[in-house]
Amino acid sequence: MSIRIGIMGYGNLGRGIECAVKQNDDLELAAVFTRREPSTVSVMTEGVSVCSVNDIESWKDKIDVLILCGGSATDLPEQTPKYAKLFNVIDSFDTHARIPEHFANVDAAAKESGHIGIISVGWDPGMFSLNRMYANAILPDGKDYTFWGKGVSQGHSDAIRRIEGVKNAKQYTIPVDSALEQVRAGKNPELTTRQKHTRECFVVLEDGADAAKVEEEIKTMPNYFADYDTTVHFISEEELLRDHSGIPHGGFVIRTGKTGWNGENNHVIEYSLKLDSNPEFTSSVLVAYARAAYKMSKEGQTGCKTVFDVAPAYLSALDGAELRKNLL
Amino acid sequence: MSIRIGIMGYGNLGRGIECAVKQNDDLELAAVFTRREPSTVSVMTEGVSVCSVNDIESWKDKIDVLILCGGSATDLPEQTPKYAKLFNVIDSFDTHARIPEHFANVDAAAKESGHIGIISVGWDPGMFSLNRMYANAILPDGKDYTFWGKGVSQGHSDAIRRIEGVKNAKQYTIPVDSALEQVRAGKNPELTTRQKHTRECFVVLEDGADAAKVEEEIKTMPNYFADYDTTVHFISEEELLRDHSGIPHGGFVIRTGKTGWNGENNHVIEYSLKLDSNPEFTSSVLVAYARAAYKMSKEGQTGCKTVFDVAPAYLSALDGAELRKNLL
Repeated sequence: MSIRIGIMGYGNLGRGIECAVKQNDDLELAAVFTRREPSTVSVMTEGVSVCSVNDIESWKDKIDVLILCGGSATDLPEQTPKYAKLFNVIDSFDTHARIPEHFANVDAAAKESGHIGIISVGWDPGMFSLNRMYANAILPDGKDYTFWGKGVSQGHSDAIRRIEGVKNAKQYTIPVDSALEQVRAGKNPELTTRQKHTRECFVVLEDGADAAKVEEEIKTMPNYFADYDTTVHFISEEELLRDHSGIPHGGFVIRTGKTGWNGENNHVIEYSLKLDSNPEFTSSVLVAYARAAYKMSKEGQTGCKTVFDVAPAYLSALDGAELRKNLL
Repeated sequence: MSIRIGIMGYGNLGRGIECAVKQNDDLELAAVFTRREPSTVSVMTEGVSVCSVNDIESWKDKIDVLILCGGSATDLPEQTPKYAKLFNVIDSFDTHARIPEHFANVDAAAKESGHIGIISVGWDPGMFSLNRMYANAILPDGKDYTFWGKGVSQGHSDAIRRIEGVKNAKQYTIPVDSALEQVRAGKNPELTTRQKHTRECFVVLEDGADAAKVEEEIKTMPNYFADYDTTVHFISEEELLRDHSGIPHGGFVIRTGKTGWNGENNHVIEYSLKLDSNPEFTSSVLVAYARAAYKMSKEGQTGCKTVFDVAPAYLSALDGAELRKNLL
């Protein structure tokens, strides 16, 4: 029997989950839940119901794992603990400072109801966190570096769109090659924000907007751009749609460290991702952890977990003997 | 109280374990066991006893995890199950075809005695296996590539040394850059053995040996060299000692895969290692898994495990809340 997956929220991430479920024979999509009027939402998988979030309780025994595809700002802090009372749940909560609080809320709800809740799943937090953790455990005397990109930052694109005179915009975060090379060479550089990443913006202006003023406003925006070398390109709406519709991303997690009686030997551990679609890759990670949530729940485990708490084998559709034979 | 580590076998790997234990405040070296006459072996850690392997049973309650540093050909198949009867054990067993049999033997012994045995720990098998497994679970529609090097292959160096007229030799395995680039670009090439790696040999001849004959014998050696583009350099013993005394290694695990309703988006997951000292890095991985074995044993788990079965958090000296705060 397949593991029955529910999707809560049908945006980029929800659609990515739907695609990922299709790639995994041991999973099936049971239902998609939306806050919109269900008749206005159509999904790609034949025969799958789109249901109102108000009816979710009736699906209690028809879904093995519910994947929450809302935002970290307001959706997930409320939804993940709430639905952990009814289902095994997974989310991609990424507001770092609020993880301890979110973990505690999900843990309490999941333990009380006897479910598993896995939070902060994706690539950062998620696969990048895992790689930081493994590398730290292996090389305790070392230094961590994380670089993001080249990729689209939704937050920075949104920040540009809020500027008066901007009709549309896309922002790319780009790691600085020479900084990456220094790190890989084991030079352990101390890098400022400006030395690690540059920001490149493609902006469509409203008719009659003042380009110089918009550019100045972008480049001096605190937190978002002021600390970076930022390039601004003004383009037409057609160009933006044609050349910048994708949502690529990726990045690099590197740890350099020393071993030996006197720290005489150097080592570099590097993990990198190059992703055509940020939401589809995040969805693929979520779906693998949904399988893990199902297996852990079957074993009687309950409460909140993160990627650190999940033994790798749970993510795979293969059993232990197959894993040892094919992948060890 | 510290986790008490025992080392069985004091060669390159055993010395690496000793160095790695020193880097971890929650671990202490309890004893080193040797098949040699103990008085002929001196270790670097002050106050640590070197004991005969014959006396190991008396250490039953004084060691939390015994790390087995022998070879996979004859030592580990016998030692790991044998000592799993007395201790929690870890090894770096790397004879791939015999892993199922070794797993079964260690599992039976460890379950009967109530211990944990973690086998095939290191970087390949080990961290490379883990990265293959995670990447396969995330991108089920994809292709795996493993490249090794640049690094010293002991097996190939030994094979050269067995040739008549060779006094000493060191062999480097080198990944082919253009193949790596094709893989990273998502081109999914089918690569032959020759297209993935080259082999470079530094050879010291015995007086009067025939260089051309030795070179021919190396280049045509079945399994080891015949399927590769091999370069042979004849150098003096002084040059070999001066320039080729290190034991560097490393490599790349890459998985490329597709997502999207019609497989329209491509992704590249890459994990790489660049290691000054192969045995010291392997030792560092073993020591992190020794911590995991201790924690899992404390929880009452028993039997044989591999890296696939160990939740990442067990490897770290930090607790769950610290991990979530600092590394998630």
